Parts: sequence; C-alpha cells; structure tokens
Amino acid sequence: MARIDAISSGYYRIPLETTLSDSMHGAMTAFELNTVVLRDADGVEGVGYTYTCGRNGAAIEALLQRDFPDLLLGEEADRIEHIWNRIWWAQHYGGRGGPTVLALSALDIALWDLKARKLGQPLWSLLGGHDDRVTCYAGGIDLDLPLEALLAQTDGNLGRGFRAIKMKVGRSRLAEDVERVAAMRRHLGEGFPLMADANMKWSADDAIRAARAFQPYGLTWLEEPIIPDDVAGYARLVREGGVPVAAGENLRTLWEFKQYIAAGAVTFPEPDVTNCGGITPFIKIAHLAEAFNLPVTSHGAHDVTVHLLAAVPNGSYLEAHGFGLDRFIAEPLRIENGLAIAPSRPGHGIVFDWAGLESVRA
Amino acid sequence: MARIDAISSGYYRIPLETTLSDSMHGAMTAFELNTVVLRDADGVEGVGYTYTCGRNGAAIEALLQRDFPDLLLGEEADRIEHIWNRIWWAQHYGGRGGPTVLALSALDIALWDLKARKLGQPLWSLLGGHDDRVTCYAGGIDLDLPLEALLAQTDGNLGRGFRAIKMKVGRSRLAEDVERVAAMRRHLGEGFPLMADANMKWSADDAIRAARAFQPYGLTWLEEPIIPDDVAGYARLVREGGVPVAAGENLRTLWEFKQYIAAGAVTFPEPDVTNCGGITPFIKIAHLAEAFNLPVTSHGAHDVTVHLLAAVPNGSYLEAHGFGLDRFIAEPLRIENGLAIAPSRPGHGIVFDWAGLESVRA
Repeated sequence: MARIDAISSGYYRIPLETTLSDSMHGAMTAFELNTVVLRDADGVEGVGYTYTCGRNGAAIEALLQRDFPDLLLGEEADRIEHIWNRIWWAQHYGGRGGPTVLALSALDIALWDLKARKLGQPLWSLLGGHDDRVTCYAGGIDLDLPLEALLAQTDGNLGRGFRAIKMKVGRSRLAEDVERVAAMRRHLGEGFPLMADANMKWSADDAIRAARAFQPYGLTWLEEPIIPDDVAGYARLVREGGVPVAAGENLRTLWEFKQYIAAGAVTFPEPDVTNCGGITPFIKIAHLAEAFNLPVTSHGAHDVTVHLLAAVPNGSYLEAHGFGLDRFIAEPLRIENGLAIAPSRPGHGIVFDWAGLESVRA
Repeated sequence: MARIDAISSGYYRIPLETTLSDSMHGAMTAFELNTVVLRDADGVEGVGYTYTCGRNGAAIEALLQRDFPDLLLGEEADRIEHIWNRIWWAQHYGGRGGPTVLALSALDIALWDLKARKLGQPLWSLLGGHDDRVTCYAGGIDLDLPLEALLAQTDGNLGRGFRAIKMKVGRSRLAEDVERVAAMRRHLGEGFPLMADANMKWSADDAIRAARAFQPYGLTWLEEPIIPDDVAGYARLVREGGVPVAAGENLRTLWEFKQYIAAGAVTFPEPDVTNCGGITPFIKIAHLAEAFNLPVTSHGAHDVTVHLLAAVPNGSYLEAHGFGLDRFIAEPLRIENGLAIAPSRPGHGIVFDWAGLESVRA
C-alpha cells in the first residue's frame, strides 16, 4: 500500500473536425476534456479523464482543483471504495449528480489505472478477465446528414472494419426517420446490427409509436428516446414498443440504473464510465444487469470502456466514438473484424500526448 | 419586456458561529454562499443565491462565470420558462444535477426577483397570494448536543417565538434517539409540533424500526432517514412505519419529486428552492403535491421560501434555518406567534450587505 502524494488536473477544449448535431444537444463544435493524474508515494501514476459536449468543464476543473485534493491526499491509493465513498459523502449535498459526478468519474478511473499499473495488469484482466475481444459499433452523430452522406459515412465505417452501426433519429417528422432507417437496412442487408439513437427527443407515446414504426427493420436497439427522468415511460416503451431499448448515458449513479433495471425499463443498460461515477460503479452496474439477465453496453470513452466490457461476461456492443480525442492518444483503439481489442498494456494503457494537449487548454 | 444586460456572481464562505454536525455530513464549520445579480435594460435588478454545506461552491461560481452568461445575456428577462429550459438543455449532459442545478436555482431566484420588483409586487403575492403568514419551525442541527444542551436550545427557540421544533436523530444507538425524542416530548408537552431528522443515516428497515419506536411520541414527521436514491425504501417506510415522512432536500428536479409523490414515498415533500432548480420548479412541486392532496414544506433559505409557502394553499411548516447568513441581510425573517411573515417589499425583499460580504469572499 502507498499513499497518494499528488493530484493534478487539466482542462482542455478539443475542437471537432466537423460540427456534430443530434435531436437535443444542438450544434456541437468542441468537446471539453478534463484529466486527472495521480501519483502515489512509490512514484506510480494513474490517469483518468471525463469529457462534456461543451459545457460544465470549468466546474469539473474547479472541483478537481479546489474540493478533491484535501479529501484524497494522504489516503491509501488501493482503498478505492473508501476514497470513492469519502468523496461521494463529502460532496453529496451540492454534488449528487452533475459536474461533481463527472469529476469523481475521472478520479476513479485514475485510481483503477494506478492500481492496475502497480500490479502490471491490464484493467480488463484485473476487473474480471472475460474476453479481450469485444463486439463494437460505430456511433454516428449524423441526424442532419443528407441520406446520401449518411450512406457514404456508413461505407466509410464498413471500410474501417465495423460490423455494427448506430445512426441518429429524431428528425422533425417520424416518416423521415423511418425512411432513413429503411434505407440503412437496405444498404446494410438483413441481420447486420443496426441501432438508432433519438437523444431524448420524444414523449413515451411518441417513442412507442416510433418503435412500432421501426419494427420491420429489426433494430438491435432504440436508444434513449425519452428524457432520463421518465422511468415509467421507459417501462411502458419496453413493454409496448416491440424493440429493445438502450438507455443510460444520462444516468449518474448505480441507483438510477437500479431504478431502470428493477422496473423493467431498459434492455441494454448503457453507462458511461466518465459520468456514472467511474469504473467502480460501472462494474457494479454491469453485474446488476447480469443479475437481471441483461447485457451491458456502453457510451463514450471507448479506450477505457473496452476494458470494462472485456472484463464481464455480459459485455455487449462497445460504442466506438472518440470525439476528436484520438489524435491526442498514443495508440488509439484497435478494431479487427468488427471486434475491439482491449490492450494488454498495464492499466487502461492510454497515453496522452500532454504536449499536444497544451495547445488546446481551455 | 426588457433584455438582460448584465449578470454578476459572488462566492463567499460564511463561517458558522458554532460547528454543526448531523448523522451524515460530519462537522460543518462554514457554509458556502453563491450569489447572482441580474440587471435588465431598464436598470431593474434581481438577486438570487444558493448555498452549500462547505463544498461544490467553486464549481457553482465557475458555472455562473463561464457557462451561463452567453446563454442569458440578451434574453428577455420576463421569459423565465424559456431561459430556464434553455439553460437546462444546454448544460444537460454534464449538468443534470449537482452544482449546475444549484447555480440554475440561484439564477432562477434572481429572475423571479427581477420580475416581481419590476411589477412592484412581493413574490408571495405574484406567485399565488394565499396567506402571508406561514407556520414555521426552528430547525436545530443538534445531533451531538448533550440532552441538557438540547433542552436549553429548545427553550431558546420557544423564547424566540417558535411554536414547532425539529431535532436531529441518528445517534449510534436507536435507544439514545428514542430517549432524546421522549425527553423533548415531555419538555414540550402533548400536541406541540415536533419533527426529527435522520439525515440519510438508516436503511429502509432501520428507518421502519425507528419510526415504530417513535410512534408513542407523536412526531409531526420523520425526515430523510434513508438515502434519496432509495425511492422503494421510502414507499415502504410510509406504508409500514406509522409516522409521516418528509423528504426532498437532496432531490434536484421536479421529476425526482414526481417519482416520490407518485410512488406514495413521501408525506411532506420538502424542496429547497436553492437546489431544486429554483422558484420555477419549487412552485410546480408544490402544485404537484396539492394534486396528490399533500402539504409542501421546505428546506433552507427561509427568506425566499417564506414567499413560496405563502403563495400556495398547501404550504406547510417553513424551516427557519439561516446558517449564519442573517448578519448579512438587512431585515431578517420576522416571526410572530410561531408564524413567519412574508415581507411586503417588492421581490423577495432580501437586501444583502454586499460590503460586509466582501470580508468573507471565498
């Protein structure tokens, strides 16, 4: 055991190559990146990060600079559950959710990275070691692409080795969404895994109507069509829509996932390790899903998440979605025959180009 | 209509006269105060604030400084629902909960203050105008006070005109809590409104056991005995405990309150206007409670909240709990014969001693 000697944080603004848009977040021109580096008394380091689609990053940096250090420094680095709970309760009153949970997620990833590096183990092995090859899909943020551009983007993804693809839905008329889904199905052929993501656009009844309209096209799942606060609406959608439902990128705690899972409100729980509280709760969510005989999928941060889905027996489609971060990472995610491969390097194996990041400080 | 011309924020650390403690938050030596001042094109101002029990305030300040101004400046000040939703969705991905909702709460209070000042109306009248006299109680943070000091504090509160009192429970042995509640009941006499607050200390089963042990002492309510994430546990407590249940200081949205209320998981919904998203959702929560034939009570920020409970027909006990802020406010809350009186000044009528606050900048 060694105590934590140092914590440092970084706050960056990563410009996107092209402006992205979906049904609720509007135009996104840059993602924020917040990093955490820990060092223990033996000089071993751990690195974590979180990201936003453009806002709240300054608050995350304030938490990492001002609130977390005195809760963390001097603690034994191996006691992750102790540290996680110490911070959760110290920050709880103003911090149950939002930027505080994103900051905690980044810290928790750094703690697990440190532990795994110290043991010389890749995270996927340390956390369970199911299978280092994980099915994955290309997640397009393509709601406003004309149909031809959508199909061309799809051909590009097929060329990059993807064997599953997600598209956005939630255009102003449902008929347009149905037409685009039908065109994608024709283009990809029967049986090719295709998902559709509505980004909270619809009411429960709208979502049920849309799910039924999508039924002929065999979607692997319909993703987050309703606001995350409407658990009862999701439960109706699962019962009445006739299409599997993925949700979770906007849930911030193990307990929110428990509400969904226990209520039969989700088919593919979809935590994001950078905003659900980190690796500690992500693995618990995966195990909770397993107990309910459900798969677990993921959102964002594919370089960390590939380890988590490789660790557990119920890991399902990894979302490959790098939001411009790949050019600041030494060895971006490897994909072969539609499978993402968890690195065998100790920890999560992500090495940031810190000098390059200097140029995009927020 | 006039557009918003300026926003400024302040971040302060208010030392407490004595260190406070409850069952989950540990020792509290200072509260953080975050303020917002808006000015519209006609020069009319609105003031809002939020507070924390010591952490997350720097993140709130970062949001008010860095994220909110471009979402707000140039908007028509009267379109509060428009502004609230614009910020909610712009900040949503990283900000559904936590410091972002506290910052939004402060802003929303400032918007309503501005609107009411412009109309020359006190908030309680503008928002509904039920009755400017509101039953209230003294909320003690007194878990670790010896019994004699607890009774002496109680006598002080009676002397200050209070006709209802809340005490903390959640000591290491339930028998101690029962003994202290019994002593308070003897001291106050039959029928005097007495509440007990456990600050999330217990499991659902612990809480049910405690509620049954408290039954002979006629508590007005047992407050927040379980973590806010366990809605099913609260529903069991209401059904099986035999004591009314208050909860809500750690719920951050209208939708979280809807989950509790629709599930029969709370008797006294207890939003805090400085952390539930502001006056806009507070009033909706009050009306939702009314639709379910429930009272609404409140947590913290009594100077603002007195207006909200005075506005609605189902307003119940106001918590009087100033966390050291009174000495920075020109005219602290008036209490007569156990009733708090909503000021007749335009807006909420709180005038901060800005010069005095300079000395406690964080």
